[in-house]
Amino acid sequence: MSVADPWTLSLCEAADAVRSGRIKAEALAEACLDRIEQAGHLNCVVAADRDAALESARITDRAIAQGRDPGVLGGVPLAHKDMFYRKGRVTECGSLIRRGFVPDATAAVLERLDRAGAVDLARLHMAEFAMGPSGHNAHLGRCRNPWNPDHITGGSSSGSGSAVAARLAFGALGSDTGGSVRLPAAMCGVVGLKPTQGRVSRYGSMPLSDSLDCIGPLARTVRDVARLMGVLAGADPRDPGTVAAAVPDYEAALDGASAGRLDGVRIGLPTSFYFDGLDPEVAELVDAARRTLESLGAGVVDVDIPDHRQLGELAGVVFTPEAATLHLPWLRDRPGDYGEQVRARLLQGLTLPATAYLQARTLRGRMLADMVEGPLRHCDALLTPVLKHPVPTGAETDVGAGAGMAKVVGGLAELTRPLSYLGLPGLSVPAGFTANGLPTAIQLIGKPFSEGELLSIGHAYEVASGWTRQAPSLQSRS
Amino acid sequence: MSVADPWTLSLCEAADAVRSGRIKAEALAEACLDRIEQAGHLNCVVAADRDAALESARITDRAIAQGRDPGVLGGVPLAHKDMFYRKGRVTECGSLIRRGFVPDATAAVLERLDRAGAVDLARLHMAEFAMGPSGHNAHLGRCRNPWNPDHITGGSSSGSGSAVAARLAFGALGSDTGGSVRLPAAMCGVVGLKPTQGRVSRYGSMPLSDSLDCIGPLARTVRDVARLMGVLAGADPRDPGTVAAAVPDYEAALDGASAGRLDGVRIGLPTSFYFDGLDPEVAELVDAARRTLESLGAGVVDVDIPDHRQLGELAGVVFTPEAATLHLPWLRDRPGDYGEQVRARLLQGLTLPATAYLQARTLRGRMLADMVEGPLRHCDALLTPVLKHPVPTGAETDVGAGAGMAKVVGGLAELTRPLSYLGLPGLSVPAGFTANGLPTAIQLIGKPFSEGELLSIGHAYEVASGWTRQAPSLQSRS
Repeated sequence: MSVADPWTLSLCEAADAVRSGRIKAEALAEACLDRIEQAGHLNCVVAADRDAALESARITDRAIAQGRDPGVLGGVPLAHKDMFYRKGRVTECGSLIRRGFVPDATAAVLERLDRAGAVDLARLHMAEFAMGPSGHNAHLGRCRNPWNPDHITGGSSSGSGSAVAARLAFGALGSDTGGSVRLPAAMCGVVGLKPTQGRVSRYGSMPLSDSLDCIGPLARTVRDVARLMGVLAGADPRDPGTVAAAVPDYEAALDGASAGRLDGVRIGLPTSFYFDGLDPEVAELVDAARRTLESLGAGVVDVDIPDHRQLGELAGVVFTPEAATLHLPWLRDRPGDYGEQVRARLLQGLTLPATAYLQARTLRGRMLADMVEGPLRHCDALLTPVLKHPVPTGAETDVGAGAGMAKVVGGLAELTRPLSYLGLPGLSVPAGFTANGLPTAIQLIGKPFSEGELLSIGHAYEVASGWTRQAPSLQSRS
Repeated sequence: MSVADPWTLSLCEAADAVRSGRIKAEALAEACLDRIEQAGHLNCVVAADRDAALESARITDRAIAQGRDPGVLGGVPLAHKDMFYRKGRVTECGSLIRRGFVPDATAAVLERLDRAGAVDLARLHMAEFAMGPSGHNAHLGRCRNPWNPDHITGGSSSGSGSAVAARLAFGALGSDTGGSVRLPAAMCGVVGLKPTQGRVSRYGSMPLSDSLDCIGPLARTVRDVARLMGVLAGADPRDPGTVAAAVPDYEAALDGASAGRLDGVRIGLPTSFYFDGLDPEVAELVDAARRTLESLGAGVVDVDIPDHRQLGELAGVVFTPEAATLHLPWLRDRPGDYGEQVRARLLQGLTLPATAYLQARTLRGRMLADMVEGPLRHCDALLTPVLKHPVPTGAETDVGAGAGMAKVVGGLAELTRPLSYLGLPGLSVPAGFTANGLPTAIQLIGKPFSEGELLSIGHAYEVASGWTRQAPSLQSRS
């Protein structure tokens, strides 16, 4: 019994292959670990732990041999952004300041994945302290895009996007405070979900902005993301920000009565902000996605939305002082150990008045109500791009703390930050390739806790469009 | 059937008299309304609604005549600080800015009291927008202390303290953001409870500081307060700050097996802050309270506490920008309609950095843990004074926004603000009189949601000490 090139499988296919005995979990882990070794030029893995991963895989193999249920992720190799604590294991958060840090507790999300049988292969590249939408890192160097290493991966979950796209792991955790799951998913051509604020526990994960931090999965297909979300979602008393909303069977919903069809589904196209000044190539691909959704039976309508430029600014007003407050002791004691861009952005948070912060926090409820009672009232989802232009190169975005910083940082996250402020869920699904050979993506935006609806729409779209079946080759080009 | 001078009863006695038919609710309400008319010199009532109160009382009388349960507060006349909204009725918050404001919803606490059968007599004097610990009000004039009208009542629930002490109503709601229930209770010689943060819903009440606002009852005896708390306590989805902790039968606990005795109860005496520089008269009365508690069987021990001066400052750092944010639109559009002290204090909140605010918010959990795992770990309650000196006169504290503002405002609330920052419950119980004839009080501080324990200790103390049986005469002296 064996599977040729098991890394070509999707996460769900890999789980099924292990469960049915067609491949040993240990062999699957070895295939991924070998592939990680071949992918050094991508700079997406900080450190792999071969022994721990293989031992974890053998536990699944023994469980299956004994006729026990290996779990919905039994034997599936994953790897995660290096900010999810595992007791006794180093976690460095893409930073010099946390180099060698060994946490004494394990993140709730890792506990949940462990219980579902997943194998944790490696710690992945990330922006320093998860601050940065490009994939640059002053300490680790830049993470590379498997579709073309000259181009950026997006960030801050840069390694998660790159490793999943390069088929080094079947899925990865990221965190999204302003777009950090959706951007690398979009730029690397994989699926990424920023869940509703409060849907996934952040206990034991590196904090950045209590009001905005969301943990979410990246994987190759929408079905893979649905399976991961079923494991990750749910309230946790150790994270008071989690909400006790029911967790649906996300994966089962993909195979429901209307599977593959979107009859009766209403999709809203925002008439402002998301399509303003859109690059023509991206516009054409998003329009093709719209036509695909219509061909599946969805009704697509134009919808007015509240001023989203203001929402993006409000996200910054909430984010900057929260991040600066968390970093105050290190800003005082070790300012030179930050990369210049991250330090410059953190220092911006020191001067903002508390009343501005509190206004931005207070307005959040009203702005969310405006969206929920407005455009999201009659639509199951909004359809938007994730990024306004083709994926840029590393050189184009290597601005450090210079004059271009605000433009690059703000520009990359322009279409993702408003959702972070509102706390709404957003699903990034591959939507083809621009002329430079890099992926582009659509963003599906829904009501609070509508992850199931977004995944169903995204699944029907990806099956019809076929974009997620494409993969980059692993050979070095740079 | 009649009761002579029914206003001399306690709240619980009045409820029992109505329930048993010894007095009609209507007669009881009339007696209180007449007394309100005689007490104009106290300036503690903003407006009474005789017709509505009498109609409400007659509903109780009809219920009793039909053999129905009138509720645990059936027919009991209450009156409240003028900041609890009742749909269609004016609520003015002690301000010019809210003059004539008619809310379109009713406060959760009023709904609960209504359901328990209470009669709402009147809206009471308060500091402008609940900002001010003395009882001064630039628009309404000063509220007077029934024990001596030259002296202050304490604030901001000035009318609540004065009206309950003067026997105009059997109980009153106040709000406590930095001491505003405990201070007027202490200075007017009645019992006041600041519950644990999250114990009582603030839905439909004037907000001042979301992190610190607590609604609590003032009444003549600890038993009266226990009965009111049984009605008021509980979670409310309309106030996300409320906590779903079990609500004990506060009143039944007063009559438990060890009623009247405190054997096995441990009381902590803080070795710093609360007794530093205490006026000798107040020190002697608090020491007498300690001896009374010991005579009832309680063990009193010295306990170290975290730096409470810092906690008071942190309370200000949380309070000031939250209040300023709520008032920003009026500060911009109607600055001249604020009293000078309230305006000056609100303006202080405009310049504080967001990081200072967020640090103060973040430190709260650690400081609370230091208290709960430190002095409150082995003690059922801490015993402290409420005010360091005898109740001052109106003239001594009439500083407006001048040089003495910080000293007067900070000084009066010095011993009450730390608890507001921590979110802990505090019970103020009368503890005798200083040489100027004004009351003084002890403060019993407990763990989160230990209101029941505090009430039991306070009840045993008040029975043994007899201080709450004393009442001022209603004749005008000023």
